[in-house]
Amino acid sequence: MKKPTLLIALTESEENDFLPPKIKAQLEALPIQLKWLRLPLESSEGWRQIIEESGAEALMAAWACPRLPDDLPIGGESGLKYVAYLAGSVKKLVPRELIERGLQVTNWGSSISRTISECGLLLILSAMRRASYWSVAMHRDGAWKDGLKTTTQSLFEKRVGIHGFGQISQQLIPLLKPFDVEISAYSPSVPDEIYNHLGVQRSPSLEALFAENDIIVELAPYHAKNHHIVTEALLRSIPAGGTFINIGRGAVVDEAAMIQVARDRVDDLQIGLDVYEKEPLVEDSPLRGLPNVALLPHIAGPTKDRRCDSTRLAIQNLQHFARNEAVADAITIDIYDRAT
Amino acid sequence: MKKPTLLIALTESEENDFLPPKIKAQLEALPIQLKWLRLPLESSEGWRQIIEESGAEALMAAWACPRLPDDLPIGGESGLKYVAYLAGSVKKLVPRELIERGLQVTNWGSSISRTISECGLLLILSAMRRASYWSVAMHRDGAWKDGLKTTTQSLFEKRVGIHGFGQISQQLIPLLKPFDVEISAYSPSVPDEIYNHLGVQRSPSLEALFAENDIIVELAPYHAKNHHIVTEALLRSIPAGGTFINIGRGAVVDEAAMIQVARDRVDDLQIGLDVYEKEPLVEDSPLRGLPNVALLPHIAGPTKDRRCDSTRLAIQNLQHFARNEAVADAITIDIYDRAT
Repeated sequence: MKKPTLLIALTESEENDFLPPKIKAQLEALPIQLKWLRLPLESSEGWRQIIEESGAEALMAAWACPRLPDDLPIGGESGLKYVAYLAGSVKKLVPRELIERGLQVTNWGSSISRTISECGLLLILSAMRRASYWSVAMHRDGAWKDGLKTTTQSLFEKRVGIHGFGQISQQLIPLLKPFDVEISAYSPSVPDEIYNHLGVQRSPSLEALFAENDIIVELAPYHAKNHHIVTEALLRSIPAGGTFINIGRGAVVDEAAMIQVARDRVDDLQIGLDVYEKEPLVEDSPLRGLPNVALLPHIAGPTKDRRCDSTRLAIQNLQHFARNEAVADAITIDIYDRAT
Repeated sequence: MKKPTLLIALTESEENDFLPPKIKAQLEALPIQLKWLRLPLESSEGWRQIIEESGAEALMAAWACPRLPDDLPIGGESGLKYVAYLAGSVKKLVPRELIERGLQVTNWGSSISRTISECGLLLILSAMRRASYWSVAMHRDGAWKDGLKTTTQSLFEKRVGIHGFGQISQQLIPLLKPFDVEISAYSPSVPDEIYNHLGVQRSPSLEALFAENDIIVELAPYHAKNHHIVTEALLRSIPAGGTFINIGRGAVVDEAAMIQVARDRVDDLQIGLDVYEKEPLVEDSPLRGLPNVALLPHIAGPTKDRRCDSTRLAIQNLQHFARNEAVADAITIDIYDRAT
C-alpha cells in the first residue's frame, strides 16, 4: 500500500512550539510520507498549486497557514482528505463547503482541557488564600499581613461543586483528589458511568450544587438556555466563607448581580475569574476594585509550552488516517456553524 | 485503671477553630476524663491552683493560655505529665525547666505541613502563569492580556527539584503527581527509602538540582551552614523559563543576589516567595516592583480553617498518653532551645 503524504505547513516559531524534538520523532515514525513547507509564503497566489503538486492527502497547519481554496479537490485519488489544524478555530483556514464535500478536519480539541483545569486549580487556591489581594497590596501598597483583616483558607477536606461536566471538569478531578475533597457535579446530560468512574457525586439540582458546596467551579457551556443561569440568588446561596470560580464562559453568569453579591459578601465570599461577559473586561469594571475577587485576563487556555499536546492528538489521528480509518472528533458542519 | 484527666483551656474562638463538632466528638470518645476551662482567666494569679485542683495529668491549650508556673509539680501521682499545645512555639507557655523535669510537650508539629505544601503549589502555578503580575495589572492598571509581552507556562510534564526533603516537601509530592512531573530532591540526610517510597529521584548535588530542573522549590531548614546557601550562581543556573519558589526560610537565600538575578532575567525566570530575609518585608524592597516575582506575606502556614488538623494530632497523642505510652514527636530540650 502506498504511504499517504502529509504536508506540514508551519512557520519556524510554530514548528518550535508544536513540534519539539520528542514529538517530531513520533511524527517521523508514522507510516506517512512527510513534506515540509516553511511559512509564511511569499505570496498566497501559489498556494493552491503547492497543495496539488505536493500530492498531499493530509495537511498539518496552524495560525499562519493561508486559507484553503473553496474549489480545492477533496477526496478521491489525489484530493485532500484530512486537515490536522493544531490551533482552535478552523473557520479562517477551512471554507465550510470543503467540510460539506467530505474533508475531515480536527483542531486542538480536548488536548487543551488539562491546562484549563490547571488554571482552575490555581484560581481556587489563589481565591482561598486571597493571593490576588496580597499581590496587589504587597506590590503596590507596601503591605504586610495584618493578622485579623484577611482570613486565608485551605482546599483540604472541602466540598467542591462543579457546574458542567465536560472534558475540562473531568480533567480537574485528578488535580483536586490529593486535597481529600468531596466532589459533586451538576450536568444532567452526562451519564452516571462517568460520575462513578471519577468518584464524583451527581448533584440533584443547580440550587443544591451552589448551596451545599464550599467551592463552586463554573464550567457550563454557553448557549441560550445557559445565559445568566448563574443568578444573584444562586450566588447568595453559596455557604459562608465559600468560593466561586469561573473558568468557563462569562455570560453564563449574571455579572452585574455577581458584582453586587461580591460587594455585599466582601469578607465571606471569594471569587476567582478568568472570563467575563464582555471581553476585554472594561477598564472601569467594579470587579477591578474588589479585594475578594481574583482576576485573570482569559489565559486559562493552552500555555505556549503545551502547544505540543495538540500535536500529540493530531498524531493519534494521523495513525487512524494512515490505516484508512476515520479520525476522532472531526469537526462536523454543526460544530463548524456553532463555533465563534 | 483510673481514667486520666485532661484540662482543656481555650477561649471560645480557639475552641471554635480547634474543636469543630467532628473533632470534639473524637476527643470525647477518648478514655480520658475531660475538664473544660474557658479562657481568658480574670486574673492569672489563680492559675497554678486551677491546674492543681483539676487533678489534670494532661493539658490542652493554645495561644491564650497563661504561662505554666516554673515550680509546677510534674509527673508522679498527681503532677502534670503532658501538654498538648495546639499552636507552634511552646516557649511562651512552657518554662524550659518543666521539660527538663520530664514534662512531655507537643505542638502542631507536622500537622501544618500539608497547608504549607498547598501554598507551595499555589506559588508554583501562580508564578508560571504570571498570575501575580496579572492581579496587579488588572486591579490597578485597567489591563487586559497583551498577547506578546507575557508568556504563561503550565506545570504539566515539567521537572521539579526540591531543596530539603522534610515533612513539607514530602507532603508536596502527592499534590504534584497529577501533573506528570519528574521530581528530584536534594537532602543528603534523608534515607533512600523515603525517596523510593515517594517516587522521587535523589539529586547528586545542589548544583545539579538547580541546573537540571524547571521548577526549584526551596524548603531547606535554616541553620548556620544553610545561611545564603542559595547563591547568585545557583539562581543564575536555573534553566531558561524556569521558576524559583521559596516557602521555607528567607535567609537560606542570598536575597540581594536574588533581586539582581530577578532583574536580569525578567522575561525568563519566575519567582514566588512567601518568606524573606527580614520580615515584615521592608516597604521599599525592590522585590515589590518586579513583575516576575509573586509575593505573599508569610501566610503558607496553617490556615484558620485547618487548625483542627493540630487537634487531630493531639488526639492521637492523647491515645498514647491514655495507654501510658510516650507521645510522638515530643519537644526535646534541644528542639526547645533551637526554636525561635
